[in-house]
Amino acid sequence: MQYTNRISCIRSKLAHLEIEALLFFDMKNIRYLTGFSGSDGALIVGKNKSLLMVDGRYITQAKGEVKKAEIVEYNDKIEGIVREVTESGLQKVGFESGATSFDSYLSLRDKLEKVELRPISKEISSIRAVKDQNEIESIQKAVEISSQALISTLDLVRPGTRERDIALELEYRMRGNGAERISFETIVASGENTALPHATPGYRKFEHGDFVVIDYGAVYNGYNSDETCTFIIGSVSDRQKEIYGIVKNAHDKAVDSVRAGVSCSEVDRIARSHIANAGLGKYFSHGTGHGVGLDVHEAPRLFTKAEGYLEKGMVVTIEPGVYIPDQWGVRIEDMVLVKEDGCEVLTKIPKDLRILG
Amino acid sequence: MQYTNRISCIRSKLAHLEIEALLFFDMKNIRYLTGFSGSDGALIVGKNKSLLMVDGRYITQAKGEVKKAEIVEYNDKIEGIVREVTESGLQKVGFESGATSFDSYLSLRDKLEKVELRPISKEISSIRAVKDQNEIESIQKAVEISSQALISTLDLVRPGTRERDIALELEYRMRGNGAERISFETIVASGENTALPHATPGYRKFEHGDFVVIDYGAVYNGYNSDETCTFIIGSVSDRQKEIYGIVKNAHDKAVDSVRAGVSCSEVDRIARSHIANAGLGKYFSHGTGHGVGLDVHEAPRLFTKAEGYLEKGMVVTIEPGVYIPDQWGVRIEDMVLVKEDGCEVLTKIPKDLRILG
Repeated sequence: MQYTNRISCIRSKLAHLEIEALLFFDMKNIRYLTGFSGSDGALIVGKNKSLLMVDGRYITQAKGEVKKAEIVEYNDKIEGIVREVTESGLQKVGFESGATSFDSYLSLRDKLEKVELRPISKEISSIRAVKDQNEIESIQKAVEISSQALISTLDLVRPGTRERDIALELEYRMRGNGAERISFETIVASGENTALPHATPGYRKFEHGDFVVIDYGAVYNGYNSDETCTFIIGSVSDRQKEIYGIVKNAHDKAVDSVRAGVSCSEVDRIARSHIANAGLGKYFSHGTGHGVGLDVHEAPRLFTKAEGYLEKGMVVTIEPGVYIPDQWGVRIEDMVLVKEDGCEVLTKIPKDLRILG
Repeated sequence: MQYTNRISCIRSKLAHLEIEALLFFDMKNIRYLTGFSGSDGALIVGKNKSLLMVDGRYITQAKGEVKKAEIVEYNDKIEGIVREVTESGLQKVGFESGATSFDSYLSLRDKLEKVELRPISKEISSIRAVKDQNEIESIQKAVEISSQALISTLDLVRPGTRERDIALELEYRMRGNGAERISFETIVASGENTALPHATPGYRKFEHGDFVVIDYGAVYNGYNSDETCTFIIGSVSDRQKEIYGIVKNAHDKAVDSVRAGVSCSEVDRIARSHIANAGLGKYFSHGTGHGVGLDVHEAPRLFTKAEGYLEKGMVVTIEPGVYIPDQWGVRIEDMVLVKEDGCEVLTKIPKDLRILG
């Protein structure tokens, strides 16, 4: 039923886009529209039929997972698409241009000389942004799995533990709790490594007075969680406490601003201006948040030049951070569900400064 | 030194490609050419300078990792590239068209009206195919880490264990042995699930008489390992033994055929014809192998229509398989290092049929 509705939603856009069919390459969109969870394939949504194309590795899986689209097998993806487009007599075909390499475009262009290929991007960039109840429940389950794993790992966050040991334990426990996989490579950064927003966990051992940033998530039923906690080991300096407080207040203000109808750039502005007003603007080097669903980063994006508005049912992160080069950094991230007149924080770990070890 | 040589190799191609500079988007190529291991950025290699562009999240990391390229920061990747190309006065710029989305191309096209943008793909698709000694040693270390983890997990491969428990233990132990990450989502398939070449580990419990296919790998220093073992639980039927033997012989013949100068398609033909001669051709639904390095799937590819020849120093998989729908399947995969007059099998688990549990 959900797949029928989602396909219908795409079909309803075809006329306005002046195309007869839309060709999908993004595997998350294909999963969203058909239920196929394999890692390679293509989907054509036409006025009257939907056609999932997969190679021999995935044909049995596709037949088991997909009920609302025809399934055909190809040996070569481009050749398979060319065959189906030609046999269907399609003249104007849109393609997902953000998920199509220029090479693939050239190959299609070359072999479909008489077909008008029209790049489609912004018009479909938000098709997964608003979540239905099933999707929200999957995200909540992913959050539950991941936060339980983190809570059970916190007694290891003490002087002498290495970053990668925490990352490993956390991932193992998320998987043990039922995660299909981890959402992304877990970030566990300590001390000066916290100055890198995207640090790779290494062999550095936690020391007294360190900040420890843990950015982690689990996947359940295809849906991601994403949360960042910054802890302190042993005791906190005045400067650390001050910066943590600034990031926490930026986070809280941004969370408080979230409701249906607010612009995505406004939520970013609220977090960013709070940090800038404290004289730390240049140390907040990324956007304030992003949508989370089948992809851990998806529409909408919350950054300075973002377009668009929050809608009821969107799930976004709020994750301001301050990173002082060669010293340390703080990031505080929650996932929130946008509601008519506010939001619900989905992630469960309290974000008041917590001293561990 | 290695980065200087690799950049020089790219520079030496510029004149022949009739471009002044080449723009890279593939992060594995960027790592290969500069040492930068972050997950986002772009690289311009010109006649006299190389320029790595990253966003604020990665600037500190880039400065630490990269010695042989200039580093500049951007807020928006396309705008950053446009600025650098314009300031450098470049007129003819090649771009890595297999790693550039059609949308990115349109944005560059739009903002660099006076610059000739030339798609470059096949000409650079094999720049990482031949490995140097350091790369081979990293791969060997990745193999060592992963095979030790599998060996230590085999006592769990017995009736009653669930697929996902083995996947989880194996991944945990690879990480514990020093893997930076796993190469890909571990495949552990049992019973009828082995009929799916790319099965996702689930809650199915191993039973007496099952085939169990384990396809796994570890990453060390950025380099991947990739190996597949098919075991049997308890006891083997005559038909299972027969099919395993056919796949094993196809594997052995293909391995024996590997040496510098042999065509990639010939290695595939040798494995494929052996399976086809046994009447099982339609059940071998993928290529015979692929290169392994910074990517777990990279050039060269060994399949029916592959072009090109094996060269000394290439590292490829040999992985024939037979998958009988709704029954079961067998895949046997080793990694081999191509030598002047043969090859060295890098993976360490013996591939004779082994009964476990």
